[in-house]
Amino acid sequence: MAIKRIDHIAIVVENIDAALNFWEDALGLDVSHIEDVVDQHALVAFLPSGQSEVELVEPTSKMSGVAKYLDKRGPGMHHICFEVDDIRAMLVKLKRHNVHLINEKPTIGTGGKQIAFIHPKSTNGVLIELYELTPEEPRRRREIIRRMRRRLVARGYVASAGLREFVRAWRGRDRRPGKTRAKSRVN
Amino acid sequence: MAIKRIDHIAIVVENIDAALNFWEDALGLDVSHIEDVVDQHALVAFLPSGQSEVELVEPTSKMSGVAKYLDKRGPGMHHICFEVDDIRAMLVKLKRHNVHLINEKPTIGTGGKQIAFIHPKSTNGVLIELYELTPEEPRRRREIIRRMRRRLVARGYVASAGLREFVRAWRGRDRRPGKTRAKSRVN
Repeated sequence: MAIKRIDHIAIVVENIDAALNFWEDALGLDVSHIEDVVDQHALVAFLPSGQSEVELVEPTSKMSGVAKYLDKRGPGMHHICFEVDDIRAMLVKLKRHNVHLINEKPTIGTGGKQIAFIHPKSTNGVLIELYELTPEEPRRRREIIRRMRRRLVARGYVASAGLREFVRAWRGRDRRPGKTRAKSRVN
Repeated sequence: MAIKRIDHIAIVVENIDAALNFWEDALGLDVSHIEDVVDQHALVAFLPSGQSEVELVEPTSKMSGVAKYLDKRGPGMHHICFEVDDIRAMLVKLKRHNVHLINEKPTIGTGGKQIAFIHPKSTNGVLIELYELTPEEPRRRREIIRRMRRRLVARGYVASAGLREFVRAWRGRDRRPGKTRAKSRVN
């Protein structure tokens, strides 16, 4: 089994919209899509760069691991994710090397991919995610995005009005409609 | 101008040789080469992964920025480096967006590449390096590696005996020869 590439670098931010002033407007990366990762209590913006992605992660609950990380350390790099060709074999190998694993078995992550985390105490302080592409991942990812769009459209937002509007509308879901609704509406 | 890809992720470690027990032996990345980056007071191991590299950075002086970072925060992710096609144009654009730059003009980094750093206060806490490949970079990189090899060979070490031996020999340069010399010698 082998590491194939760096899949993404996750960066914890307080507010994705504000963070995009740098990552998108100034640096010039483009947001490909946004996901509300319910089980991680986080809104995630994906910005592809070559074979890899930068992921901006904004906590959506104060109790999540990411929110606690943000409270304790402030915004910054959170983890690196490597794509592997065989995650189960890799976890067996790591265990044989006495590497401390957070997940001894793969779990299902964003978009239906198989993931597992390695503990920073075995990796020189770096939280590492391993990920194996599953055949159903592209379909599951499209489904998640479509579901999110439908929910926004149902509330009168135009998900296709641009991703910044999309984030603003999404982040505003718990606030007063008058203040947070995106300018563009469904025609 | 545009970001082309993630060139590398730099990870500060206390001891490259010990760190390779995880990154090389357990995780399975391969060290392509090692450099003694004199102006940064650091020994750097390069581990390619797809289009990008993991760089393990071990301070070689207590006064360096990397050593201070290690003292303060412990080992961990230090910076992300993006390759850009036009570093000067990128720096102008970033300045126009009021991004705080550590280097307003590119400087010459490892292997002769043009680099500049962006301050973490403009980037959600992430130290970012920008890098533009220069035509002379591959030649300069080869020269640096050859010079390092010659120095080791002159001391009786076999630089080609394997990179782990190479690191051990190199790290041992300030210690007692009897204790630190690599097992293999020039025949």
